[in-house]
Amino acid sequence: MASLNVLKIGGNVIDNPPVLEAVLRDFAAWQSPKILVHGGGKIASKLMEQLGITPKMVEGRRITDRETLDIVTMVYAGLINKNMVATLQRHACNAIGLTGADANIISAKKRPVKDIDYGCVGDLTPACISACMLANFINAGLAPVLAPITHDSAGSLLNTNADTIASSVAIALAQTFRVQLIFCFEKKGVLRDPGDDESVIEFLDDTLYNQYRHEGVITVGMIPKLDNAFAALHSGVAEVRICSPGDLNGGTRIRVSV
Amino acid sequence: MASLNVLKIGGNVIDNPPVLEAVLRDFAAWQSPKILVHGGGKIASKLMEQLGITPKMVEGRRITDRETLDIVTMVYAGLINKNMVATLQRHACNAIGLTGADANIISAKKRPVKDIDYGCVGDLTPACISACMLANFINAGLAPVLAPITHDSAGSLLNTNADTIASSVAIALAQTFRVQLIFCFEKKGVLRDPGDDESVIEFLDDTLYNQYRHEGVITVGMIPKLDNAFAALHSGVAEVRICSPGDLNGGTRIRVSV
Repeated sequence: MASLNVLKIGGNVIDNPPVLEAVLRDFAAWQSPKILVHGGGKIASKLMEQLGITPKMVEGRRITDRETLDIVTMVYAGLINKNMVATLQRHACNAIGLTGADANIISAKKRPVKDIDYGCVGDLTPACISACMLANFINAGLAPVLAPITHDSAGSLLNTNADTIASSVAIALAQTFRVQLIFCFEKKGVLRDPGDDESVIEFLDDTLYNQYRHEGVITVGMIPKLDNAFAALHSGVAEVRICSPGDLNGGTRIRVSV
Repeated sequence: MASLNVLKIGGNVIDNPPVLEAVLRDFAAWQSPKILVHGGGKIASKLMEQLGITPKMVEGRRITDRETLDIVTMVYAGLINKNMVATLQRHACNAIGLTGADANIISAKKRPVKDIDYGCVGDLTPACISACMLANFINAGLAPVLAPITHDSAGSLLNTNADTIASSVAIALAQTFRVQLIFCFEKKGVLRDPGDDESVIEFLDDTLYNQYRHEGVITVGMIPKLDNAFAALHSGVAEVRICSPGDLNGGTRIRVSV
């Protein structure tokens, strides 16, 4: 089975051009098949502010109305995605920027209205991913760069969480590749001591995770991230890594217990 | 040789949502392999106006400075391109939206500075097109939707004329496919009488074109369009058609004399 790296980068990288440049250079240097998934960052909020659009919030949650969807489509799928692709091309990485609508690679579902109508927001599961089409692109020598925008197959784009895209893509492709899912994060990895940035836990498996949680070593903020990591591992992903933009090949390695 | 339709639509279609919807529905219904190339329209200028950005003009020509490039990247490659792709997916057409940077399908050259520096504007020839990669996508059952943005392979995106993209793509793919290049236009075709919208010339070849030019039947405004059409035909394109959005399968058919 060929290896595949799925790298997720968030706003902390996107909003810092020199850091983004370094991450893209390191990503381009990876020789194995690879996919980059990116989040949004602050550019969309800044553009909304310039246009005098007030972010819609309900009970502290951001709502994606049509106006907001247009903005995030422009910024995430246009400005950010295409500039990343051009930079990767400069580094001799044959990148292809895609939303979920392109080649129908991610057909999501508009989040159902319960207490809150989140608007044009997409939810997805690994079954929503066209693993076959993504594998086609990878086998053609391309590196897909996925923007956090999907579609509902009924003509609407949907704003979608980039972490969920990254883990769903990793799980969907785990049947074809040995997948390493890498979350690029503001810290150097999972820390033993939140006050000490150098206290990186180099390796975690279920047993160690449970032990560290009982001991209170793992802080509350990290628990959802790590629960997601283990969910991906239990769905076939070979390894999850949590690392910083400065050390894409380091950080905390996470595997299932053998 | 399989047939391939390359359809170019401009601002007159993009700025009119019901017309755009009808064109996309008709494009989706074509059974043969196909590529859609779109221009920009007025949304970018409107956004610049809202943001208080004054279009830069030199000797009556528009200049694409960095600020303008960001806007057209957002609007053409993001908003317009991705909404078209989502609409085509709704019509069961497996569209994939691309700029020239994606999969390196169009590596253009920044227009050299002579009297005027046009800024981030790309010029291209059919040799700049990766016909092989486009054919890969088509053979995978995809319909590429090309935004008028290319790149210089050195990390910069470039604003690029959609007519030039359409004819260069058509010529580059004429070695692999029997290509029909279709320009969607505000009139029903090339008119015998500019005052009579129904006076469509149904067929033109070199001989008829020269005859009509001598007779003054073809108006000055149409000459650059038709010269480009014949240049494409003399470079291997099988047929050029000039038609209106309401009749994608009609209009004026143009071929080389046999």
